[in-house]
Amino acid sequence: MKLWQKDIEVNQSVDAFTVGQDRVLDMKLAAFDVLGSLAHTQMLESIGLLSQEELKLIQQGLKVIYREIEEGNFVIDDGVEDIHSQVELLLTKRIGEAGKKIHSGRSRNDQVLVDLKLYFRYEIEQIVEKAKNVFEILQQLSEQYKDVLMPGYTHLQIAMPSSFGLWFGAYAESLTDDLEMMLAAWKVTNKNPLGSAAGYGSSFPLNRLLTADLLGFASMNYNVVYAQMGRGKTEKILAQSLSSIAATLSKFAMDACLYMNQNFGFIKFPDYLTTGSSIMPHKKNPDVLELIRARCNKIQALPNEIALITANLPSGYHRDLQLLKENLFPAFTSLKECLDILLLMLQNVEINVNILEDSKYDYLFSVEVVNSMVLQGMTFREAYKNIGLSIQNGDYKPLKELKHTHEGSIGNLMNSAIRSEFIQIYQSFGFVEVNEKLSELL
Amino acid sequence: MKLWQKDIEVNQSVDAFTVGQDRVLDMKLAAFDVLGSLAHTQMLESIGLLSQEELKLIQQGLKVIYREIEEGNFVIDDGVEDIHSQVELLLTKRIGEAGKKIHSGRSRNDQVLVDLKLYFRYEIEQIVEKAKNVFEILQQLSEQYKDVLMPGYTHLQIAMPSSFGLWFGAYAESLTDDLEMMLAAWKVTNKNPLGSAAGYGSSFPLNRLLTADLLGFASMNYNVVYAQMGRGKTEKILAQSLSSIAATLSKFAMDACLYMNQNFGFIKFPDYLTTGSSIMPHKKNPDVLELIRARCNKIQALPNEIALITANLPSGYHRDLQLLKENLFPAFTSLKECLDILLLMLQNVEINVNILEDSKYDYLFSVEVVNSMVLQGMTFREAYKNIGLSIQNGDYKPLKELKHTHEGSIGNLMNSAIRSEFIQIYQSFGFVEVNEKLSELL
Amino acid sequence: MKLWQKDIEVNQSVDAFTVGQDRVLDMKLAAFDVLGSLAHTQMLESIGLLSQEELKLIQQGLKVIYREIEEGNFVIDDGVEDIHSQVELLLTKRIGEAGKKIHSGRSRNDQVLVDLKLYFRYEIEQIVEKAKNVFEILQQLSEQYKDVLMPGYTHLQIAMPSSFGLWFGAYAESLTDDLEMMLAAWKVTNKNPLGSAAGYGSSFPLNRLLTADLLGFASMNYNVVYAQMGRGKTEKILAQSLSSIAATLSKFAMDACLYMNQNFGFIKFPDYLTTGSSIMPHKKNPDVLELIRARCNKIQALPNEIALITANLPSGYHRDLQLLKENLFPAFTSLKECLDILLLMLQNVEINVNILEDSKYDYLFSVEVVNSMVLQGMTFREAYKNIGLSIQNGDYKPLKELKHTHEGSIGNLMNSAIRSEFIQIYQSFGFVEVNEKLSELL
Amino acid sequence: MKLWQKDIEVNQSVDAFTVGQDRVLDMKLAAFDVLGSLAHTQMLESIGLLSQEELKLIQQGLKVIYREIEEGNFVIDDGVEDIHSQVELLLTKRIGEAGKKIHSGRSRNDQVLVDLKLYFRYEIEQIVEKAKNVFEILQQLSEQYKDVLMPGYTHLQIAMPSSFGLWFGAYAESLTDDLEMMLAAWKVTNKNPLGSAAGYGSSFPLNRLLTADLLGFASMNYNVVYAQMGRGKTEKILAQSLSSIAATLSKFAMDACLYMNQNFGFIKFPDYLTTGSSIMPHKKNPDVLELIRARCNKIQALPNEIALITANLPSGYHRDLQLLKENLFPAFTSLKECLDILLLMLQNVEINVNILEDSKYDYLFSVEVVNSMVLQGMTFREAYKNIGLSIQNGDYKPLKELKHTHEGSIGNLMNSAIRSEFIQIYQSFGFVEVNEKLSELL
Repeated sequence: MKLWQKDIEVNQSVDAFTVGQDRVLDMKLAAFDVLGSLAHTQMLESIGLLSQEELKLIQQGLKVIYREIEEGNFVIDDGVEDIHSQVELLLTKRIGEAGKKIHSGRSRNDQVLVDLKLYFRYEIEQIVEKAKNVFEILQQLSEQYKDVLMPGYTHLQIAMPSSFGLWFGAYAESLTDDLEMMLAAWKVTNKNPLGSAAGYGSSFPLNRLLTADLLGFASMNYNVVYAQMGRGKTEKILAQSLSSIAATLSKFAMDACLYMNQNFGFIKFPDYLTTGSSIMPHKKNPDVLELIRARCNKIQALPNEIALITANLPSGYHRDLQLLKENLFPAFTSLKECLDILLLMLQNVEINVNILEDSKYDYLFSVEVVNSMVLQGMTFREAYKNIGLSIQNGDYKPLKELKHTHEGSIGNLMNSAIRSEFIQIYQSFGFVEVNEKLSELL
Repeated sequence: MKLWQKDIEVNQSVDAFTVGQDRVLDMKLAAFDVLGSLAHTQMLESIGLLSQEELKLIQQGLKVIYREIEEGNFVIDDGVEDIHSQVELLLTKRIGEAGKKIHSGRSRNDQVLVDLKLYFRYEIEQIVEKAKNVFEILQQLSEQYKDVLMPGYTHLQIAMPSSFGLWFGAYAESLTDDLEMMLAAWKVTNKNPLGSAAGYGSSFPLNRLLTADLLGFASMNYNVVYAQMGRGKTEKILAQSLSSIAATLSKFAMDACLYMNQNFGFIKFPDYLTTGSSIMPHKKNPDVLELIRARCNKIQALPNEIALITANLPSGYHRDLQLLKENLFPAFTSLKECLDILLLMLQNVEINVNILEDSKYDYLFSVEVVNSMVLQGMTFREAYKNIGLSIQNGDYKPLKELKHTHEGSIGNLMNSAIRSEFIQIYQSFGFVEVNEKLSELL
Repeated sequence: MKLWQKDIEVNQSVDAFTVGQDRVLDMKLAAFDVLGSLAHTQMLESIGLLSQEELKLIQQGLKVIYREIEEGNFVIDDGVEDIHSQVELLLTKRIGEAGKKIHSGRSRNDQVLVDLKLYFRYEIEQIVEKAKNVFEILQQLSEQYKDVLMPGYTHLQIAMPSSFGLWFGAYAESLTDDLEMMLAAWKVTNKNPLGSAAGYGSSFPLNRLLTADLLGFASMNYNVVYAQMGRGKTEKILAQSLSSIAATLSKFAMDACLYMNQNFGFIKFPDYLTTGSSIMPHKKNPDVLELIRARCNKIQALPNEIALITANLPSGYHRDLQLLKENLFPAFTSLKECLDILLLMLQNVEINVNILEDSKYDYLFSVEVVNSMVLQGMTFREAYKNIGLSIQNGDYKPLKELKHTHEGSIGNLMNSAIRSEFIQIYQSFGFVEVNEKLSELL
Repeated sequence: MKLWQKDIEVNQSVDAFTVGQDRVLDMKLAAFDVLGSLAHTQMLESIGLLSQEELKLIQQGLKVIYREIEEGNFVIDDGVEDIHSQVELLLTKRIGEAGKKIHSGRSRNDQVLVDLKLYFRYEIEQIVEKAKNVFEILQQLSEQYKDVLMPGYTHLQIAMPSSFGLWFGAYAESLTDDLEMMLAAWKVTNKNPLGSAAGYGSSFPLNRLLTADLLGFASMNYNVVYAQMGRGKTEKILAQSLSSIAATLSKFAMDACLYMNQNFGFIKFPDYLTTGSSIMPHKKNPDVLELIRARCNKIQALPNEIALITANLPSGYHRDLQLLKENLFPAFTSLKECLDILLLMLQNVEINVNILEDSKYDYLFSVEVVNSMVLQGMTFREAYKNIGLSIQNGDYKPLKELKHTHEGSIGNLMNSAIRSEFIQIYQSFGFVEVNEKLSELL
C-alpha cells in the first residue's frame, strides 16, 4: 500500500523496480525517522496543528516505536513502501486518527532529507571516533619506534634515511587533515532541512527554528529550494570527506603490503592476521591490507558516482536521488570496518629493527655527507658533484650517525603538536551537545 | 642544462617527455618561487648558513626578479628545466656565488611543495572573491524578484508555486556551503611544507617555524614524510572544493538553459550574450551557459583524475605527481572565467513576470487548497484524497493567493541570515593577514 | 573451515572482513563453477591425473550438484569460505577421496577466473537479448510514428522539424553501436584462462586446448601471466560495454522525462506506469524513467570504480580484485531490469500527434525556407541573412510541408539497413554454439 | 567575424569565453575539414547544387589549402572563429562567390562531426601502429629471455617461479585484447555522419552514400538524429579504447618501477634513460616510467570526464560537446608519446639473469614439490599439508628444475599464436583501403 495511492492498480514490476532496495536501506533511517517525527510533532503542537492530547499520544507512540527499533523488533512490512509509511501506519494502528496527523506540514521529500541528515551525523560521529582510535595508535607507534631507522624512498629508489617514527607519524598527521574535510562535511550536514516540504515550502506557519533546536542542528538550510538542492550535494561532500580518510588508509595499506613483501621485509604481522594459499604452503598473505586498500579505493570512486548521477539534473527533486543511498550507506559500514581492522593490525604490527645493516642502504646517507661538507663551507652544488663522483668511483663512505633536529624531522617528530591540532578539530564537531539534544527528545 | 646533470648526455626524447608542459605551467609558480626563496634565505641567514652580506645580495637580486615577473619580463630560457633552476641561474649570473646557496637546506621537492601551496592560496583567494561577487548578485536578484512567482517542479512535473526569489536565493545559499568546503581546502593548504627536503628532512638545523611565519602560514606540515605525502592530497582536496562550486554553477546553468527554452520561457538574455546559428536564423543560443555547465562538469571530473593518478602509489615522491599540474592549473582559470561570465549573465538576466497566468500552471496550487482544508480541521490524508478526486473530476479551482511565511519560504527568504553565514566563513580565510605577511617579504 | 587452513585459529574479525560478501555473490558463480570442474576433470583424466573410475564418480557427483543449483537447492554452508570450497566439500562428502582431486592442476585463482568468464558470457548473452527486445520495439515505434512530426532542438532551443520516427529510430541505431562494444567485450571474455594456476602456470602437463574446447571458448588467454592479468581488465572492459548501453538508456530516459513534462507534453504513459505524490494529488511522476536514468548513470560510473581499484597494482594476483564483484554483479541485474522495464514503458508510450500545431514551433521551418531559396539559386549565406531579417521584422511565414528524402532523414529512415547491421553484429556472438558446447558437458 | 553574425556587436568576453581553445585545437582538424569539403562538394555537384565549373574551382582551391596545411603554411586568422570559417573565407577570397557555396546542404554541426570522425580515424591508425611496435619488441624480448627465470608474486608475496619470457609476453598479449577494443572504437567511428545537417536532416536531396564512399567510410550513421547523438558517444568509446591500452602501459610501468627498485633489482636502464636528483647524487630515477604510468592513468580518467560532461544531456546538439576536444586531442598525443618512449626503453632494458640464486626465493619452488608428490599419487591436499609442515619445520628443499610444458607456460610461451591473433585484428582495421580512398580525393 502506498500513501499516495489513487485506487489504480500499480503495475507490479513498476513497483518492484521503483522501490528497489529502499526497504532494506531504510532500516538504517528508522530511528532517525522517529526522532524527526518527535521534533516535528512538538512543533506542530506549538503552532496549533495538533492538540496537546494528540501530541501526548503521538509522542508516547513514537517513543515505543523508537525502543522497538533499538531492540531490533521493528520491520518494514511487506507491501509497505518505505520507512516513513511504516512508522505512520504503525502509529495510526496503535493510537488511531492522531497518527495520521504526523505528516501534516511536511512531505516525504523533507522527511527523507531530515532523516538523512540525522543519519549522516550519526555516521560521521562513528567514523570520527574510529579515525581517532587509529590516529592514537599511529602516534603511539611513532613514539615507540622513533629511533628505528628505515630507508626513505623517492621514485621508489633508495633515497635518504627515514624512520618508523616518521612513517607512522605521517599517517597520523594525514588523518588530521582528513578530519578538517570531515568537519566541513559535518558543517554542511548539520543544518535543518525540515520544513521545506517538497522543496517549495508550505503555507503552514511552521516554526523551523524550533525543529532545528530540538534536533540539535547548528543552523538550517534556510531557502527551501536550497534545502532540497542539498540532497545529492550533501551526499557528494560527505563522500568526498570519506574519500579523504579512505585515501590515507589505502596509501598506508599499499606501503604495508610493500614492506611485508620479502624483498623489503620491513614489517610483519602474526599468522592469525594473514591468510594462506590453496597452492603455496609458505605464503602469508596480507589479504586484510589488500582489502583495506581496495575498499578504500572503492570509496574514493564514490564522489564521482554521485556526481555522475546528479550531474545536469535541473533543480527540484528527482527520483534519481533515491539511488544515492545504495553505495553511500554501505560505504559508511565499509570504512568503519576498515578503521577497526586497521587498528587491530596496527596493534599487532612487528617491526624489523635491523633494516639498515644491509649494505645496499649505504647510499641513503650520501646527502648527510653532502650536508656536512656544506656546513664546513662548501657550496651545495660543489659538495653534491663531489659526492656524486666519489659514488661513481666507488670510494664513498656513509656517515651513519644522524643529527636531524628541525621540526618534523627524525629527531623531533612534533607528535604532540600534531595531536593538539587533531584534538582541536575533533572538539569542533560538538558531538556531545548534539547527542544531548537528541536524548532530550526521548 | 639541469642542476643535477652528471656530464652524461641525456637522451633528447627523454628530456622532452619528462619536462612535458612544465616550463609553461611553471610560469604560474614564478612569483611564488621567489617569495619562497626570500623567506628561505632569511631563515638560512638566521641559522648561520648565509652571511648577512650574502643575504643582502640575494634578497636584492630576488626582489628584482620578482618585479620582472610582475611586469611580465621573465621567461624560462630554452634548455632550462623548470622555474627553480631559472631563478637560481639568473640570480647566480647576477650576484655570483651567493646565488648558488639559495638551494642549501632544501630539495626541489620541498621547493615545489611550497611554491604550490603559495600558488594555491593565491588561487583560492581569487576564486573566493569571485564566488562572493556571484553570491551578491544572486542575493540581489532574489530580493529584487521576491514577489515574482514561477512554477516549482518535482520529477520535472509541475508541482507547487515557487518564486524567482527562492530560485536565485537557493543558489546563493548553495555557494555558502561550497565556501565551507573551500575553507577546509584552505586550511589544509595553508600549512608550511618547507624544510621537508626530499620528504625525509635534513641534517641542517632549519627553523621551519620562522619560514612558516614569514610566509604567513597558519601552521605547518610537521612530519616531513607527511609534508611530501601532502602532494597529490592537497591537490585532490582542492579539486574537490572547486568541484563543489562547479556543481553549483553547473546546476544553475542547466536550470537557466531549460528556462530559456521556448517551452518554458521563464528567462531571457540580451542578444549580445547569446549566439546565433549558421543554419537557423531565429536561434538565440545559450552557448555561454552551456559552456559554464560543461566546464564545471569537467571540473567535477578533476578530483577523480587526481585520485586515479595517485591511487596505490606508496609513500615518497614519485614523478607522477608532476602531472597533477596539467589539469588543475587550468581548472583555476576556467572556474574563475565561469564565475566572471556568470556574473555578467546575471547582471543582464531578464525575467518573465507573467508566467503563472498560463492555465497549465493551475495545478501548482493544489497543495495550497489541501493545506487550507487541513487548517480547517480535516486530516491531511483526507484533504489530499479529496483534491485528488476533484482534479480527476475536473472541478478543481486554484487558490492563487499565497501566504508562505515560515523561515526560508517565498514570503520570508532569510537572505540576510544566509548572508551572515557567508560573510562569517569568508572572514575565516584571513586573506588580509596572509597578504600583509607576503608584502613584508618584498 | 578453509582449504588452506594451517591449524592456527584465524582471527574472527579477519575472517569476516576478508570473506566480505563473497558467499552471497558467489551464488551467481555456482553453476559455472561446476561446469568448469566438469571440463577440468575430463582434462585431468585425459592426461592421466584421474582414473576413468574417479572421473565417472566425479562427473556424476558434479551433475547432481548442478541440478541442485538449478533447482535452488544449493547453499554455501556457514563457515565455508567460498563457492569452490563448498562444491569440493560436498562432492568429497558424497563420493569420497576422488572429490579432493578435482583441485589438482589448478589454483583458486584460475578457478575464479574461469567461473567469472563463464558467468560473464552468460550475462552478456542475457543483456544482448534484452537489448535486442528494446531495439525491436524502438524500430517498430519509429515505423509506426514515422509521419508524426515533433520539434527538433539544438542548444535546447527550437531548431528544425524532427519526427517520432527519427527520435525512436535514433535510439535503436544507438544500440547498434553499443552492441559493437559489447561484442568486443565478448571477444575479450570468451578466452580460456583455465590452466594458468596461480598466474604462473603448472608443472602438470595440462591440456588447455581441451578445456577451451569443452567450455566453448573461442580461444584462450595463452600466456599464464596474462591470464591472471585479465582479471580486473576483463571486468573493466565489460563495465565499459555495459556503460555504453547504459548511456543510451539514460539519454532516452532524460528525453522522455523532458517530453513528459507539461511544458513539452510530447508523450504520456498510462497511470499504472507512473507514480503519485504524497503531497500533490495531480502529479503523475516518471519515477520509472528517472530510475532508469539514475541506475544507468550509476553503471556509467562503474568502469572508473574498477580503474581506481586496479590502478597501479603491479602484476600478479592481489586480493583487491575480489572486490570487483561487488558492484559489477549487481550492475548486470540492474541493467537487465532497466532493459525489461524500458520495454514495458515503450510498449505503452502514448504520442501527442498534434504538437506542431502550436504556433511557437513555426520557426522550426525557417531552414526549409532558406533551402528553398538556395534551390532557386541564392547563395546559402544570402538566403540565411534574408530569413534572419524577415524573422526580426515579423513577416516570416513557415513552409510546413517537408520533403526530406535523403538517407536517414524524416522521409527515409533507413530502419531496415540499421536492422541489418544490428543483426549482423548480434549473430557474431555465436551464443548458440557456446550453449551447445555447455550442454554437452551436462 | 562569425558566419552567423547578425550585425549586433557580440560582447567581447562572451566571444573569448565561447571560442575558448578552439582555434588551437581546430588546427588538428584543418586537413580533415578540407577532405570533408572535397567530398561534400563533389556530392553537391552530383545533385545539381554546384555547376561543373564551380566544382572545378572549388576543388582546385581546396587542394591548394590542403597543401598549405601539410606544409605548415596555414593559420586561423585572428577574429576568425573556427577552422570551418577560415577555410570558407580563404576559399571565397581566392575563388569568389563559388567559395560560399561549399556550406550548402550542411551545418557546422555535421561538418564538425565529419572532421572529428576523419581525425579520429587518423589518430586510431597512428596509435595502432605504435602499439604494434611495442607489441613486437615485447614479443622479441619474451623470446630472447624465455629461459631467464624470475620470481612470480601473488599478494606481492613470493609465490611461484616465473620468467622474463612470461613477463614480457604477457604485456604483448594484453595489447592484443586492447586492440580488440580499439577495433570496436574504429567500427563505431568509421561511419559517415555527413548529411545530418544540424541533427535533423535536410530538404536537399543529399547523396550520403556518395560522400560515405568518397571518404572511405565503411558505413554511415544513418538516422540523422543518431548521427548527432554520436558526438560525445564516439569520443567516450574512443577514450575507453585508449584507456585500455593506457592501462596496459601503466601496469607495465608500475612493474618496471618496482623491478628497478634496489630491493628487487630485476631490471636496469642505461643512465641516459634515467634522471638524477638535485639532492641525492647516487639516484638513477625512472622518471620516464613514472610519467608513462601517470599519463596513462590520466588517460584512464578520460572516459569518466566525457561521461560527466555528457550525462543527462537530452538529445540534440549542446555547446557542451565542444569541450570534449580539450582533453581528448592531447590524450592522443600523450599516448603516442608514451608508446614511442616505451619502445625506446624496451630497446634498452637490461635484465638481471641471476635473480633466483638468492636463497630468499627458494620457497618459489614449493608448489613444484607439491605437484611432484601429486604426480606420484598423493592427493593435492595432503601433499600441500605435507610441504606446509616441512616449511614450518625448516627442512624444506627446493626443486629448482622446472618442467612447465603446457600452453602458455614458461616452457611453451605460445608467442606465435598470440602474434597471429594480433595480426588478424590489426588487419581488420583496413587502414590501407581507407587511405587509398582519401588519396583519391586529392
